Amino acid sequence: MSQTIRIGICGYGNLGRGVERSISQQADMSLVAIFSRRGKAGVEPLNPLTTVEHLDQMIHYQDKIDVMILCGGSATDLPEQTPMIAQYFNTIDSFDTHAKIPEHFAAVDKIAQKHQHVSIISVGWDPGLFSINRVLAEAVLPVGESYTFWGKGLSQGHSDAVRRIEGVKHAVQYTIPSQDAMNRVRQGEQPQLSTGDKHSRECFVVLEEGADAARIEQAIKTMPDYFVDYETSVQFISEANFMQEYQEMPHGGVVIRSGQTGEQTQQTYEFKLNLGSNPEFTGSVLVAYARAAHKMKQAGQVGAKTVFDVTLGDLSAKSAQDLRKFYL
Amino acid sequence: MSQTIRIGICGYGNLGRGVERSISQQADMSLVAIFSRRGKAGVEPLNPLTTVEHLDQMIHYQDKIDVMILCGGSATDLPEQTPMIAQYFNTIDSFDTHAKIPEHFAAVDKIAQKHQHVSIISVGWDPGLFSINRVLAEAVLPVGESYTFWGKGLSQGHSDAVRRIEGVKHAVQYTIPSQDAMNRVRQGEQPQLSTGDKHSRECFVVLEEGADAARIEQAIKTMPDYFVDYETSVQFISEANFMQEYQEMPHGGVVIRSGQTGEQTQQTYEFKLNLGSNPEFTGSVLVAYARAAHKMKQAGQVGAKTVFDVTLGDLSAKSAQDLRKFYL
Repeated sequence: MSQTIRIGICGYGNLGRGVERSISQQADMSLVAIFSRRGKAGVEPLNPLTTVEHLDQMIHYQDKIDVMILCGGSATDLPEQTPMIAQYFNTIDSFDTHAKIPEHFAAVDKIAQKHQHVSIISVGWDPGLFSINRVLAEAVLPVGESYTFWGKGLSQGHSDAVRRIEGVKHAVQYTIPSQDAMNRVRQGEQPQLSTGDKHSRECFVVLEEGADAARIEQAIKTMPDYFVDYETSVQFISEANFMQEYQEMPHGGVVIRSGQTGEQTQQTYEFKLNLGSNPEFTGSVLVAYARAAHKMKQAGQVGAKTVFDVTLGDLSAKSAQDLRKFYL
Repeated sequence: MSQTIRIGICGYGNLGRGVERSISQQADMSLVAIFSRRGKAGVEPLNPLTTVEHLDQMIHYQDKIDVMILCGGSATDLPEQTPMIAQYFNTIDSFDTHAKIPEHFAAVDKIAQKHQHVSIISVGWDPGLFSINRVLAEAVLPVGESYTFWGKGLSQGHSDAVRRIEGVKHAVQYTIPSQDAMNRVRQGEQPQLSTGDKHSRECFVVLEEGADAARIEQAIKTMPDYFVDYETSVQFISEANFMQEYQEMPHGGVVIRSGQTGEQTQQTYEFKLNLGSNPEFTGSVLVAYARAAHKMKQAGQVGAKTVFDVTLGDLSAKSAQDLRKFYL
């Protein structure tokens, strides 16, 4: 590993841009090329010197790229792309359709085993760092309850749902964790909490001209699945205000395990992220796991992996000696 | 692994008792025996049916114990015991003299390699879970600053220092993290903070009859290394109050990394423990890592290891399938 780890990016939306930015922060990595189905003409990388290629050129980069970071969506891109690309490269993806993870793992594992690559799936913060903390917390506190709270954060799915209502020009939805519910958990109460008990929803909406605000507020608050089970607030704002104040993508959340040792001794474990930009942070996590994939492959491992299969020694850029000396 | 993982405990103070309690919470483990230099007569296990043996009987248990959990102190016990016992068993220890970890690792590794055992050293919460979070946070946020705060917690070393002052009958010292300093870090300010800036110290003291309170308060507050660089409060309390209210061993703390991605986007990573009992929690962490040592040995790994070398798959009692299905 005297040379840098050579990275490719497949897919160039918000997440791909986050990955591009993150690679420039890692001293042991270099970005070789961005691949997009839009090709050169359709992609403007943050660094104008970065090579951009059409997806179908990827196979010519087998000797030039150590790890391909897949930045497509979980609905349609990744189920197809990860197994396909695992034929040619070690891969990282952020597949986050929880119910389909076992199926995705099996499909990727088969190809990665056959072609002797390491493919780490479902990387990011949830699934990802939150998953790590759910497992670590339960391993060290087997008796107890775990809770995941999300937010404050922009929910793309809920924002889209509001935008689909007639008369809505722009909208964003923030998921807000309940401070009261979190404090009850922190105090060791171990309450039963539905997702609606743990979160409220805040919508900021720009109306089309002449749209009926009362009707739209009602349509949002009564929308099945998305809003009806939550305390929901709706604020109407101007388009100028929306463009100035509501363009960022903050997110985050908290994993708490409330456990007991001995004779009902309360032990509380908490992991929290407060993220200024969800895609930039997720991108940064994917990049760290690209290092792990490269090291694991060099050590002779192959197949599909998750964050549960990766050591911190492989994830870190530091040597094992330095980790023991300075980080233990 | 159809049978349970068979555990031995070496050393039976507060930590040994914590380990004993924790094993009873783990469905896949059983406690075979406690070993103490005091022998049978000197040890009262929490479960009176537990076998107690003198230390020198340990070698007769080589076929009966999978992992020996060492619960001695870092000053004199572990530097001698871990290498010695690694000849015969997979081991876990909580060696926490930071400056001597590389030396301890080398000594243990030599023996563990030779005798084909897995020896995980420096396990607990700091070193241990806090170390994990320092490495994970820096891997995913390479640009930023990390901070460790301790407390609120009982510091044994500082309590001992107060007790050594003439005229002090009983004393406890709690380390208190500075809320103000933590909030500055959480807000992304990245301040330069000394240990004294990050913590204050609270002492609760029972005087010997006729002792001079003012002199003792002065002796505490000006004590070099221990107190002089900290904001320190001293309260004198009655012996009855002390016995009733100050016998527990709470501890905990926070690791925060304040990082930046992209163009100065603030990302904040925080890990927090609030522990009702330090030795019970530390014992519980040691027990989880005993599982990992057993699984790693079964998979053919040998030598000294740290928390940086252990996957969550090995740490958890769940199958890899269940982890992917329910925890990702």
